Amino acid sequence: MTTSTMPTEITEILENPARRLLLKGSAGAVAALGIMSLTPFVRAEELSSLPGYASWKRKQDLILHSEATMETRRNAIRSGIVTPSETLFVRNNLPAPDASIVADPDAWEVRFEGVNDPRTLTLGELKKIDVQTVASVLQCSGNGRAFFPHGASGTQWSVGAAGCVVWTGVPLKAVIDTLGGPSGGAKFITGTGGEEIPDGLDAKEVMVERSVPLEVMERVLLAWELNDDPIPIAHGGPLRMVVPGFYGVNNVKYVKYVALTENESNAKIQVSGYRVRDVGVSGAPDQPSMWEMNIKSWITLPLDTTEQGRNMLYGVALGGTRTVDKVEVSVDDGETWQEAELLGPDLGPYAWRPFVLATELSPGEYRIVSRATDVEGNSQPEARMDNERGYGHNGWRDHGVTVTVS
Amino acid sequence: MTTSTMPTEITEILENPARRLLLKGSAGAVAALGIMSLTPFVRAEELSSLPGYASWKRKQDLILHSEATMETRRNAIRSGIVTPSETLFVRNNLPAPDASIVADPDAWEVRFEGVNDPRTLTLGELKKIDVQTVASVLQCSGNGRAFFPHGASGTQWSVGAAGCVVWTGVPLKAVIDTLGGPSGGAKFITGTGGEEIPDGLDAKEVMVERSVPLEVMERVLLAWELNDDPIPIAHGGPLRMVVPGFYGVNNVKYVKYVALTENESNAKIQVSGYRVRDVGVSGAPDQPSMWEMNIKSWITLPLDTTEQGRNMLYGVALGGTRTVDKVEVSVDDGETWQEAELLGPDLGPYAWRPFVLATELSPGEYRIVSRATDVEGNSQPEARMDNERGYGHNGWRDHGVTVTVS
Repeated sequence: MTTSTMPTEITEILENPARRLLLKGSAGAVAALGIMSLTPFVRAEELSSLPGYASWKRKQDLILHSEATMETRRNAIRSGIVTPSETLFVRNNLPAPDASIVADPDAWEVRFEGVNDPRTLTLGELKKIDVQTVASVLQCSGNGRAFFPHGASGTQWSVGAAGCVVWTGVPLKAVIDTLGGPSGGAKFITGTGGEEIPDGLDAKEVMVERSVPLEVMERVLLAWELNDDPIPIAHGGPLRMVVPGFYGVNNVKYVKYVALTENESNAKIQVSGYRVRDVGVSGAPDQPSMWEMNIKSWITLPLDTTEQGRNMLYGVALGGTRTVDKVEVSVDDGETWQEAELLGPDLGPYAWRPFVLATELSPGEYRIVSRATDVEGNSQPEARMDNERGYGHNGWRDHGVTVTVS
Repeated sequence: MTTSTMPTEITEILENPARRLLLKGSAGAVAALGIMSLTPFVRAEELSSLPGYASWKRKQDLILHSEATMETRRNAIRSGIVTPSETLFVRNNLPAPDASIVADPDAWEVRFEGVNDPRTLTLGELKKIDVQTVASVLQCSGNGRAFFPHGASGTQWSVGAAGCVVWTGVPLKAVIDTLGGPSGGAKFITGTGGEEIPDGLDAKEVMVERSVPLEVMERVLLAWELNDDPIPIAHGGPLRMVVPGFYGVNNVKYVKYVALTENESNAKIQVSGYRVRDVGVSGAPDQPSMWEMNIKSWITLPLDTTEQGRNMLYGVALGGTRTVDKVEVSVDDGETWQEAELLGPDLGPYAWRPFVLATELSPGEYRIVSRATDVEGNSQPEARMDNERGYGHNGWRDHGVTVTVS
């Protein structure tokens, strides 16, 4: 195995440790990455307890895919408008840094480039510039990957690589204004994570560095609070670049470098990673990047069985960057639809809306599906859009549940 | 001591156990009430750990006044849109029932009267009627009592007998409709708590039974979830009658009886308790009852000291039943005011809004105060309204903080 081929496999190992067993000669790479905790990475079937950096999570709410990937159980959401941090999924692209970086959060430093007055600011200084609080869905690009029949590689997320959380931080725009504005020619916001790069690996091959279009700057936050508490290390504390409405990977954890750039990052995670392409095709820069989330919904209750008679069918719906206008629910796999009620306060266009439909069910087996529509009329498609890595799945048919009524 | 005089003192003991030391001959009454846990009631200065029924709370966020009264620290709120259950204040009028009542919540029974089809329904049945989610401030009538100079009896709450939480339950209106509607002549909604009445006491003297005007029925919930989790025993689970915008006492815990009634309850807590009257006057039915909350705000950060230069002043503001329109902040005890920014999503008219004001402070001592105004133009008054029990304090002057800038 050469160094140049190693990182691809390492990425796969990190996303799906079970695949490690299929890889030959990767022992060195695995050892190099076993720095997240004292125990080496463990494959899903063996993982029975939460890793140290996430030990404060509610284990009963999570499916432990690996030490770096923990999925929120479908039944742990019910009708919650905000997902508790203890229940929120975890997905790390690299082993999390040592928790010592959140011990004195205000001392955390971020370098800003691509502005007229490039500078390094501490989190303590950022906190004094301005502050904003935004509710936003955090969702992994591969949420729903488990439904692809071609066996898309990566963590086999069902619906639980998503949560609706509240971020508090400084608007990036206010920071950029403080630093004299863009220095010219900028087309992207590029954020770099503060993870340690394992020895012997090429940083560009494994680092988390993502670029998003400059047009979304108005909504980007450099956030220090998740659900009104300091962001824990498992979720990117002490500081995370939050791009509301964009897939999880763009929300760079432990952000240590923010630049306004003319080009997208040349890190692998940007160049060929998180690119939507046909099955069997390699990732490349000319393919769509996993930026803006699409409209999506799923049922959260009931899941397997329920009793005959009146039933309340619950779920959640998100519009990505657009407010959800309505959600329809079908108990006959899409033959007929009924409009559900949206539940609770509207936390804004980036948040999700719980919904509920009251309906009568007689004994039998039901395929219950949901379909959301946003204020601009965009609806979920029926089918999945097959793609190599199983990204961005929002087809309503696959996201349904089969419930036996007795 | 006669039985008829005992309950008044018991109420005082429950609200402020330190007063127990001042009472003569009350040992029997205290013993009769020592059923909340295995340890007897302990006065504030001695309470060093959370009582069993609230052992899951964040102790560092709370001031432990007594086993029945725990206040959220002013610095535990910061800019939170929703107060975590672990941080929410606790105030019980009677010892909490045994936690066994939340073990099988769906079996909890509630009797409905004053309707055309009076019936007993289980929580499981209520859950199938309808569901709604509402964000609402929960606040004790005596929040701010500590600021009254006449030494109003009861727990000496500062600002922390309040939190903004999310309730999920069935709209009472939907239940009443299911039961054939009001049976006629109803002017009040009367809810009765499921606490056990200690032996030897007259139930009407100590029971928690509150009546609120029928006009608010549209907003009343019978709630089974607090912040998207089943309501814990400390907060009235398995079922609580929630009246958004009304003071805490009207939100009857462990509700076991709901009636539409022509008259208000004849329980002491309604007849003479929670009545606003002049200092030295006894409670009576012709005085205003502690129903609707008034507009109020307070600073949450900084509190004691801060550094010179640019500072972010945080706080929260609630409008009771009306949306907060604006909050002004003064750093010179009300001489001059600046308008603050409201932070985060608006969770509706019953929720609070965090606010922030960025300002420059040079070394010195500052009295920082805040003043909220609702969409109908109602503003906080400057002064407290003196009243016997120290209820409903929303004067801005007393709620300020004195901060030393160095």
